[in-house]
Amino acid sequence: MSEQRARHIAVIHGPNLNLLGRREPEIYGHTTLDEINEALVSAAAARNVEVSTFQSNYEGAIVDEVQLRGWESFGIIINAGALTHYSVALRDALAAVPASAIEIHISNTLQREEFRHHSVIGPVCTGSIAGLGPSGYLLALHYLLDRLDIEEQGSDE
Amino acid sequence: MSEQRARHIAVIHGPNLNLLGRREPEIYGHTTLDEINEALVSAAAARNVEVSTFQSNYEGAIVDEVQLRGWESFGIIINAGALTHYSVALRDALAAVPASAIEIHISNTLQREEFRHHSVIGPVCTGSIAGLGPSGYLLALHYLLDRLDIEEQGSDE
Amino acid sequence: MSEQRARHIAVIHGPNLNLLGRREPEIYGHTTLDEINEALVSAAAARNVEVSTFQSNYEGAIVDEVQLRGWESFGIIINAGALTHYSVALRDALAAVPASAIEIHISNTLQREEFRHHSVIGPVCTGSIAGLGPSGYLLALHYLLDRLDIEEQGSDE
Amino acid sequence: MSEQRARHIAVIHGPNLNLLGRREPEIYGHTTLDEINEALVSAAAARNVEVSTFQSNYEGAIVDEVQLRGWESFGIIINAGALTHYSVALRDALAAVPASAIEIHISNTLQREEFRHHSVIGPVCTGSIAGLGPSGYLLALHYLLDRLDIEEQGSDE
Amino acid sequence: MSEQRARHIAVIHGPNLNLLGRREPEIYGHTTLDEINEALVSAAAARNVEVSTFQSNYEGAIVDEVQLRGWESFGIIINAGALTHYSVALRDALAAVPASAIEIHISNTLQREEFRHHSVIGPVCTGSIAGLGPSGYLLALHYLLDRLDIEEQGSDE
Amino acid sequence: MSEQRARHIAVIHGPNLNLLGRREPEIYGHTTLDEINEALVSAAAARNVEVSTFQSNYEGAIVDEVQLRGWESFGIIINAGALTHYSVALRDALAAVPASAIEIHISNTLQREEFRHHSVIGPVCTGSIAGLGPSGYLLALHYLLDRLDIEEQGSDE
Amino acid sequence: MSEQRARHIAVIHGPNLNLLGRREPEIYGHTTLDEINEALVSAAAARNVEVSTFQSNYEGAIVDEVQLRGWESFGIIINAGALTHYSVALRDALAAVPASAIEIHISNTLQREEFRHHSVIGPVCTGSIAGLGPSGYLLALHYLLDRLDIEEQGSDE
Amino acid sequence: MSEQRARHIAVIHGPNLNLLGRREPEIYGHTTLDEINEALVSAAAARNVEVSTFQSNYEGAIVDEVQLRGWESFGIIINAGALTHYSVALRDALAAVPASAIEIHISNTLQREEFRHHSVIGPVCTGSIAGLGPSGYLLALHYLLDRLDIEEQGSDE
Amino acid sequence: MSEQRARHIAVIHGPNLNLLGRREPEIYGHTTLDEINEALVSAAAARNVEVSTFQSNYEGAIVDEVQLRGWESFGIIINAGALTHYSVALRDALAAVPASAIEIHISNTLQREEFRHHSVIGPVCTGSIAGLGPSGYLLALHYLLDRLDIEEQGSDE
Amino acid sequence: MSEQRARHIAVIHGPNLNLLGRREPEIYGHTTLDEINEALVSAAAARNVEVSTFQSNYEGAIVDEVQLRGWESFGIIINAGALTHYSVALRDALAAVPASAIEIHISNTLQREEFRHHSVIGPVCTGSIAGLGPSGYLLALHYLLDRLDIEEQGSDE
Amino acid sequence: MSEQRARHIAVIHGPNLNLLGRREPEIYGHTTLDEINEALVSAAAARNVEVSTFQSNYEGAIVDEVQLRGWESFGIIINAGALTHYSVALRDALAAVPASAIEIHISNTLQREEFRHHSVIGPVCTGSIAGLGPSGYLLALHYLLDRLDIEEQGSDE
Amino acid sequence: MSEQRARHIAVIHGPNLNLLGRREPEIYGHTTLDEINEALVSAAAARNVEVSTFQSNYEGAIVDEVQLRGWESFGIIINAGALTHYSVALRDALAAVPASAIEIHISNTLQREEFRHHSVIGPVCTGSIAGLGPSGYLLALHYLLDRLDIEEQGSDE
Repeated sequence: MSEQRARHIAVIHGPNLNLLGRREPEIYGHTTLDEINEALVSAAAARNVEVSTFQSNYEGAIVDEVQLRGWESFGIIINAGALTHYSVALRDALAAVPASAIEIHISNTLQREEFRHHSVIGPVCTGSIAGLGPSGYLLALHYLLDRLDIEEQGSDE
Repeated sequence: MSEQRARHIAVIHGPNLNLLGRREPEIYGHTTLDEINEALVSAAAARNVEVSTFQSNYEGAIVDEVQLRGWESFGIIINAGALTHYSVALRDALAAVPASAIEIHISNTLQREEFRHHSVIGPVCTGSIAGLGPSGYLLALHYLLDRLDIEEQGSDE
Repeated sequence: MSEQRARHIAVIHGPNLNLLGRREPEIYGHTTLDEINEALVSAAAARNVEVSTFQSNYEGAIVDEVQLRGWESFGIIINAGALTHYSVALRDALAAVPASAIEIHISNTLQREEFRHHSVIGPVCTGSIAGLGPSGYLLALHYLLDRLDIEEQGSDE
Repeated sequence: MSEQRARHIAVIHGPNLNLLGRREPEIYGHTTLDEINEALVSAAAARNVEVSTFQSNYEGAIVDEVQLRGWESFGIIINAGALTHYSVALRDALAAVPASAIEIHISNTLQREEFRHHSVIGPVCTGSIAGLGPSGYLLALHYLLDRLDIEEQGSDE
Repeated sequence: MSEQRARHIAVIHGPNLNLLGRREPEIYGHTTLDEINEALVSAAAARNVEVSTFQSNYEGAIVDEVQLRGWESFGIIINAGALTHYSVALRDALAAVPASAIEIHISNTLQREEFRHHSVIGPVCTGSIAGLGPSGYLLALHYLLDRLDIEEQGSDE
Repeated sequence: MSEQRARHIAVIHGPNLNLLGRREPEIYGHTTLDEINEALVSAAAARNVEVSTFQSNYEGAIVDEVQLRGWESFGIIINAGALTHYSVALRDALAAVPASAIEIHISNTLQREEFRHHSVIGPVCTGSIAGLGPSGYLLALHYLLDRLDIEEQGSDE
Repeated sequence: MSEQRARHIAVIHGPNLNLLGRREPEIYGHTTLDEINEALVSAAAARNVEVSTFQSNYEGAIVDEVQLRGWESFGIIINAGALTHYSVALRDALAAVPASAIEIHISNTLQREEFRHHSVIGPVCTGSIAGLGPSGYLLALHYLLDRLDIEEQGSDE
Repeated sequence: MSEQRARHIAVIHGPNLNLLGRREPEIYGHTTLDEINEALVSAAAARNVEVSTFQSNYEGAIVDEVQLRGWESFGIIINAGALTHYSVALRDALAAVPASAIEIHISNTLQREEFRHHSVIGPVCTGSIAGLGPSGYLLALHYLLDRLDIEEQGSDE
Repeated sequence: MSEQRARHIAVIHGPNLNLLGRREPEIYGHTTLDEINEALVSAAAARNVEVSTFQSNYEGAIVDEVQLRGWESFGIIINAGALTHYSVALRDALAAVPASAIEIHISNTLQREEFRHHSVIGPVCTGSIAGLGPSGYLLALHYLLDRLDIEEQGSDE
Repeated sequence: MSEQRARHIAVIHGPNLNLLGRREPEIYGHTTLDEINEALVSAAAARNVEVSTFQSNYEGAIVDEVQLRGWESFGIIINAGALTHYSVALRDALAAVPASAIEIHISNTLQREEFRHHSVIGPVCTGSIAGLGPSGYLLALHYLLDRLDIEEQGSDE
Repeated sequence: MSEQRARHIAVIHGPNLNLLGRREPEIYGHTTLDEINEALVSAAAARNVEVSTFQSNYEGAIVDEVQLRGWESFGIIINAGALTHYSVALRDALAAVPASAIEIHISNTLQREEFRHHSVIGPVCTGSIAGLGPSGYLLALHYLLDRLDIEEQGSDE
Repeated sequence: MSEQRARHIAVIHGPNLNLLGRREPEIYGHTTLDEINEALVSAAAARNVEVSTFQSNYEGAIVDEVQLRGWESFGIIINAGALTHYSVALRDALAAVPASAIEIHISNTLQREEFRHHSVIGPVCTGSIAGLGPSGYLLALHYLLDRLDIEEQGSDE
């Protein structure tokens, strides 16, 4: 990550996350994806960073987005939804690009079906936040923004 | 399923089912997908119900179709093909929408490779019909139409 | 199945199915076994086919019944109940006789305990219907009757 | 268990327990099944409760007995013998009836072959007593009698 | 086995073996069970030993037969059929009685489905013969008769 | 157990059992640990036997207690709580001392998470009682007291 | 969590975390535990909340601390260290108390040995943050403080 | 493969292979996908065979391409990338078409993560070449061209 | 096996069988390998068949012997000793040659360590005899001689 | 591989490959090992490289050959036959020597028994070619010769 | 280990080792822990090295001792007893400190229960000695003293 | 081991150990096998004991050596190399002979590939020393010589 990258964070949402607020609210809550995206855009803008948001039900489109954003953005905040558990293609894309990725899950996946306990993308992400609801996205954003500030201060010297 | 839904059944076919009649006929038989779709459309029309049919080799397109149809249709008849065995994204889509889904397999998957013995979408469907060839689709249709009649009679009162 | 067989369908119910309507109704519903049997007998009679019905809590008695019916009947409709998951003896009996067997489960076994996800008789049956309640028996009956009509028309020529 | 049930306890012994006292006495001891049954009958009589006893080498007969006794008796004391480890049919029968079942093993099954460490009926019983020899039956009886007294006192008010 | 036992060998056949000669002849051949039993009876008679033969589709009946014969007979020749793979009750019966048991399989079970590779009764038998067709029964008989001769000669001294 | 041991029973409770009555009462009930201990002390006193009681959240302290009590006491009644499932150190301690140990569980562990189905201390205990609530402790006590009476009567002669 | 709890957060560190800054810095970094604790105390103080901090190499001591704090504190921030992977006792303690717990890992455990991929305490925590270094503690603190504010605002009305 | 097929070879590259030369060069080397494609096209042209090349990050697009090319082309050279390990849909497509497929991997997948050791498409391909870098594609091409020459010579006669 | 083969049976013993009579006699008995070989040679001579005998501790030498004898001999009697459990090379050799092989084990391998329960050569042998001591070799010999007589009588016609 | 090595390629064939052309031709084809060896020798001679060929049924002899050739030869082409699946000794030998090894399989091992899907030598080879028949050897040879040319050109400069 | 460390060896004994000589002497022998400790102290004194000895039944205390000794001592000789098999906390402590640890087991753990075959601390120790009784401690001591002499001679130059 | 055996120790090295000092020195170090053998011979000579040394890449030759030495030598020091992990033949040979065997590994096998964590010969050896480099052999020698002295002193009396 030594090369200079833009003050940009890519937010990527996987399959069925477009249904947030409407889908199984006892698990996923009532906040919509638009509300989450807007919160991230404004929080970043307040710290002078641009955020792009993207959602797709296609694994291929998400891989494309990671390839598009991952070379220039400083970081990726990704809730891969169901792809978390089997998309080696997404894992490979995340491993290929220099941006730091933070894995987000709205629910605590360890309290759900056993196949949700395993993340194939986890080992190529910097870290993960799970079970903290939509707040998880914002916590990840602030973590990345702090890291960005530290790196820029470092590269100033 | 308490909210009123349309007299509509969505039929969804997964990857490679467009090859039906041409692909491994010793396993899948000689009936084409068009023939199956037509039989479903007329059988439903005879009972005053509309049927939409859809096939795609893209997991994302099938998830989109489930999201499009699953909130308004009364039921979904789905032969997910290979996606049956690994598409958690499709499972999540089926779990998210209120329509009852019936899982269809043309062949008896228990007589084939071991990885075909496990269905990740099965637990979120109402039930399944396997090994009965193209008839499976029609049996599922009649099951759903009977359920629809019962529900409508119930809600008349 | 080239040899001519009688216009007869054998319906076989495994252990504890005599309790239907009384046992765990939230799983198995309120229909009794007698009601299911009567529906099958009349539906078949309307198409000029005889149906025998049988229930036992003894694996040995069920194997005996398969041996008794399986050489002459056109088809077997079997809900093996708990034996589904371990009775290799029943599997061997079904494999030994020429009649086509259709496996029925009232509940969707994939939504229940993991040991119910595996059927030892499935690989020697023609197909299966699960999760569609008592309707599953009737759908299987109609499938077999259609097959019988087709075979008889074929052998007429 | 809210419905009133008789002051009756059903004692059920599985395959090969008729050989007690004669079979592998280094594991099962020298007490015979008749001696155990008599001790249970008298202990219960002393507290004004009737005990029925039953042994069979047939899974089907044991399922029948559970169905016969399980709706009226207050409790079942069952040593399923070898069936403990594979009889889903017995599990289903015990789950179907309202009587509380206590699972008994004369030997400590955890000190024996690995396949004896797993009980398929355990999850549908109230509890279990293992390794305490024939005393286990009596301890279970006293537990059930105490529970019966408490319930009857409760329902008096 | 120090106690004197009768010049008697018990031959026990498990589920579906009554169909021998008629059932899947490409696996089990064309010899019937009666032919096998007769060959065993005459071969033993020629050496002055009585043979009893028994077949049942009921696990319970087979356990009963082992208990009936196992205390007095010199040996048991048992083809447990499907019970081989799951009947702990049969295993317990064979372990309980003093007679030596020889396990027979007509086909080579290692060439068939994986669940047939494991025998739960094998560890409590003296030995096994598999894959040698109906001859396996006769070889087992001669082995037991030779052992009987040696023991009787030994006990003469 | 041939050496004479004191008329003393050691009752040992593992981690979190100090919370009994307060912790997850739908699983563990409303009885407190003090109430259980008092019941055991008086029941034993009535039969002229002393009971010591001990609870700790430290595995080491429980091993110390087993070592302290296990050489002199006649028996140990132990509910190891969570240590049941992984404390090889506790297993080794119980195996090292001559006192008979009875394993107690208040809830039926087979009805809970899968990791609670396995006991590492079970194979070195005499037996176990599970799922019978606080009564399990008293049943174990009476079993041990009966054994103690029998042994003392035996050693009198 | 309906009962009113104190404006207090308990921070609990498991075995070997006292070595932070000194132990394997390529994995755990150079920040010491004191520095982390101080940062948490001041950040909370700024929002008028008290933080207690605790570290021990004893599982028992950590269970004691959870029991001490978990009934009154609003939340628990816990890095259980190695206990994460096997301490059922700690899981039971966390499940027993009403405080919300957030699980923290400094490193991304999915990038390390396979036995570190599984958390036995995860299913009883609200959520988790891993791989984000010492920042993970602060993110968790802010999440809990936000929740506390929301709950207090809610209960004001 | 008895039907005459065109002198055409389809080259298909899976997800992330568009990044070749840029992505993890210590694993995948510095050759780009364009360079590989050009080498294949010219090598085939020199032997009078046409080569089509295709890359996509979408499983559905790759299935489409296999369906498009697999009925007419003589052979398929496929590096399925991450899809190798889970895409049953791709396996089904390859099994459905008559063209011979050769599976290519640039790196030696057995030297990498364990999930890369298993290929779901391998059993329906003719063979595989792994670990030989970009040369693997050319070796596969020459193998197919030799086979094509032999078949055409054979069919001339 | 349609081609005429010599009246010759090859007897092959694997590693450590040269120690028979001296090695672990409580498992393997007191008969030596020479005694077994001599008994086989004379029994075969009495029926006008030649027997060759061979023992080696080298897998390679045993594969060589199977290749040497397997094309001309009528049958192979093989006790592969420890190689039974892992020598795929021996399996391949036995599968490559037309002679029927019978697998022998002196002890009942199912009563010993778990790794001895699995035979890699079993699926390519005609059948097996285990647990019957040195008699197993002679029973196998008589089986093969009977088969030889039948085949020669058949080919006479 | 920085040290200069001879223009020599060692070809090594494992157990039973001496039977090629004679053994199971439906799997291994009709080409003999001599024909393969001669083709390799001439193809290499045409490019001025010497090839040695070796076959043995002894694991030890193959390890010896790897040790003999592996320090001086430029590369090793090895079809380890059955040893592929269990010979850790061969793996260690290949890992010990500097020559690059290419693993060859004539058949597609993924289409055969499951134990053939795993190669213990694969992780220490450069790469593998499977399922392409005897051509696989030649493709490997050309790969190694190209590598040799490149290295020599590189070291000329 | 480049930093100079004291001429000190820490000997650490895990749970239940205080019972040595008294506990299961058929497994652990008759030597007491004091005798072992004294032998180690004198043998080291003879070579001018100090030995500290420590035993505890508390995992936490053993972790503390490793932390106390592991930074200054030259080596650690540790028999972790039961903790060997599950204490990740002890593993982490040993990995954190620079001292070389040698793992000791008095008995041959491979001859005991399967759960004793696995050591979680083994991978972070220098090596292990098992099955050689109390001598194992002394052999480890002499190994460490030899290493200490070599290092000191090396650092003199 | 009651019979008198010679003052002789057999040292046996398995496959590839002839390469010691030349093979992967970062794992196995720079000491050669000759140096190890010479050190063992002189150390033993100093205590008036003869040592034989043997190395082979052939499993069969090692089994022969164990059979040759194991009846007369007092002990065996064996580093079976790769055979450690699969040679049941070697295990059987070691179990067959009366000499005590000590298993040696130069590297700490628990720090290497998972298949090296399991020893099939371990359970039939007296004990093992791993990870202590060539010193392991000498420690084992001294252990055996001490045992020899003790036994001879014992047998003098």
